[in-house]
Amino acid sequence: MKVAVLGYGTVGSGVVEVLMTNQESIEKKAGERLEVKYILDLRDFDESPFKDKFVKDINVILEDEEVKVVAEALGGVEPAYTFVKGALLKGKSVVTSNKELVATHGPELLEVAKNNQCNFLFEASVGGGIPIIRPLNNALTADEIYEITGILNGTTNFILTKMKTEGRSFEDVLKEAQELGYAERNPEADVEGHDACRKIAILASLALGEHVDYKEIFTNGITQIQKEDMDYATSLGYSVKLLGSCKRTDDGIYASVQPTMIPQNHPLANVEDVFNAVLVKGNMVGDVMFYGRGAGKLPTASAVVADIIDAAKHKQTNIMCFWSREKVALEPYEGCKATYFVRLKGNAVSNEQRVQEAFGKVECITPLKEDEYVFITERAPIQELEEKLNNLKDIEVISKIYMEK
Amino acid sequence: MKVAVLGYGTVGSGVVEVLMTNQESIEKKAGERLEVKYILDLRDFDESPFKDKFVKDINVILEDEEVKVVAEALGGVEPAYTFVKGALLKGKSVVTSNKELVATHGPELLEVAKNNQCNFLFEASVGGGIPIIRPLNNALTADEIYEITGILNGTTNFILTKMKTEGRSFEDVLKEAQELGYAERNPEADVEGHDACRKIAILASLALGEHVDYKEIFTNGITQIQKEDMDYATSLGYSVKLLGSCKRTDDGIYASVQPTMIPQNHPLANVEDVFNAVLVKGNMVGDVMFYGRGAGKLPTASAVVADIIDAAKHKQTNIMCFWSREKVALEPYEGCKATYFVRLKGNAVSNEQRVQEAFGKVECITPLKEDEYVFITERAPIQELEEKLNNLKDIEVISKIYMEK
Repeated sequence: MKVAVLGYGTVGSGVVEVLMTNQESIEKKAGERLEVKYILDLRDFDESPFKDKFVKDINVILEDEEVKVVAEALGGVEPAYTFVKGALLKGKSVVTSNKELVATHGPELLEVAKNNQCNFLFEASVGGGIPIIRPLNNALTADEIYEITGILNGTTNFILTKMKTEGRSFEDVLKEAQELGYAERNPEADVEGHDACRKIAILASLALGEHVDYKEIFTNGITQIQKEDMDYATSLGYSVKLLGSCKRTDDGIYASVQPTMIPQNHPLANVEDVFNAVLVKGNMVGDVMFYGRGAGKLPTASAVVADIIDAAKHKQTNIMCFWSREKVALEPYEGCKATYFVRLKGNAVSNEQRVQEAFGKVECITPLKEDEYVFITERAPIQELEEKLNNLKDIEVISKIYMEK
Repeated sequence: MKVAVLGYGTVGSGVVEVLMTNQESIEKKAGERLEVKYILDLRDFDESPFKDKFVKDINVILEDEEVKVVAEALGGVEPAYTFVKGALLKGKSVVTSNKELVATHGPELLEVAKNNQCNFLFEASVGGGIPIIRPLNNALTADEIYEITGILNGTTNFILTKMKTEGRSFEDVLKEAQELGYAERNPEADVEGHDACRKIAILASLALGEHVDYKEIFTNGITQIQKEDMDYATSLGYSVKLLGSCKRTDDGIYASVQPTMIPQNHPLANVEDVFNAVLVKGNMVGDVMFYGRGAGKLPTASAVVADIIDAAKHKQTNIMCFWSREKVALEPYEGCKATYFVRLKGNAVSNEQRVQEAFGKVECITPLKEDEYVFITERAPIQELEEKLNNLKDIEVISKIYMEK
């Protein structure tokens, strides 16, 4: 079977490497030999051993009937969307690691694939090499999933882990992450939570069977987290993690990306460094967690190639995937019930009564720093908690972090 | 589609419950309504709302052409084997949670299924509700798996967790586990490692594509673990876990079930209580871990029903599964390189020189009890370590535990 790879960056070159390295076992599992016929890239790779395979025109690939699977590793919505749709319309299966493309056009591309007896597969778009899309599609099918929560971004998890274990500031660790190549020079997509937001949108859509629009997900990054917050978390037996989450509650469906304090015995609390993990809660199976490297050339490429193998095993057969265009009506996040960990400037003398007036009962925490008043609120809708914080008026809020008890 | 359930014990009744509770979402995912037509059990259930479905003769099920899927939840090799083979020969797909049946007759039953255009599926036989069989079969296909290691038995993990956190003895916690229904009155299958042994045999067979005979797996239970061992482990930053493991090394393939000290930052170290987890190492994807409830009525039934849904989606199509009858040649376990944690009776004066003569360099550990001499050996073949321990002759070995550094 002939394969075309779109984009020869980190993931694209990884796909070629995985196909070469494990050629023999892959052939056995796919039931036939998989061969890269084309690599699409605008750059020249004259020194590459595959230099004969490079093309610059997508039409060469689209018009070649021998090509049955296209692995898209361009990233971004365009031209990926146009190329992918073009391939599907020709009956070529497409596999991709492109979370932005999937979050934006997933249901449409799945429909196009179905109408053309081919497949649109995207295991690599969330959690790198961790199998999570496939288990949602074909393993946890006996369950109604009422929550899916994950550490979905390796860069921010690396930063939070270092802040915690080495007592360093966000800015300081970010710099190291950039030097190590874990963070981009412009780190916004990671540290502001946008990357995790696309990924939880994909997972939530699959769990619910309908489209969760990433633009409607309440998203907050980790730039406001201070190293002192980490010390408090540790002393309370908690960890601070950037969690993407979608929950079905009695009040409706909520989705968010935000730094969250979780108890140390929470399955996600010990997921450290660049690792990712996804926790799925089903009404029958209970808690199930998937853990592994959420990024990186070979782990991501491994997932792309597993999808290529699946495409080879399902020629002319559409693998069912429930993700309709119908949009999920998310509840406004302000209504979601939450517990806040709050640090205020001042001390008991200046603050205790004011806090009590505003919040009623709270759990006071012994401050680790001078001139701080620290407490944990009761559980209440976020809107209500924010109003209460506003009622403190002139008392400066040093930090507030969402807490899962 | 009509389904028959064999055995109305914990798992069998759970299967009926899951099919009822999530009927609507299951119908959507299976593409048709799934209906339990028969329940096979020798006992009478006159009070059951399903009393009309009970039969005592397997032939009623085998001869009914409407029954397309049989869910086997009898446990044990016979009569399960005969019933399952009979169903497959009639072209009925079989799904099972029966690890003993799968470990013993897996490759043959897969062959029978293939020859009769139906499926033999066994997601529930390992790790209860955790999707692990399916990911090995269809997600991690781009990788060559060089290690698979898991906490595969909830009873022993519960006991080890309690021994560690509450400083109690094995016998004491076992009694509690029996009272809670987590352990059988005859706990041998769990505490001696036989249950974990069947499960790692299944996982190893799927990872290698050939048959790993569970009878050839070096198996050691947790009955020898003392509460003091737990204290040492904790003070060294380790946890003691009963691990089933199969590794491909430069010296060959080793498989074992044994209590193992693993560092606290090991992904399996924080898997507590009755939870199970399986760590898979692939040459491309790196470490991937699957975590969840390894037993229990509904989690196990959830996996059985997911298999029923898969069977419904693959009528007349055999889902490829690589597990040939050809037997894997495991290396004799004595040759496997290991590190031992050793506690001897005596003190430095009486033991230091003798230990040095026998073992050469060792890492001495400050004893937590009087009249003990504690050390960690260098890495060496187990046979060699055992010989060295024998050379200590009259010095009493209080305990020795395999250690993963």
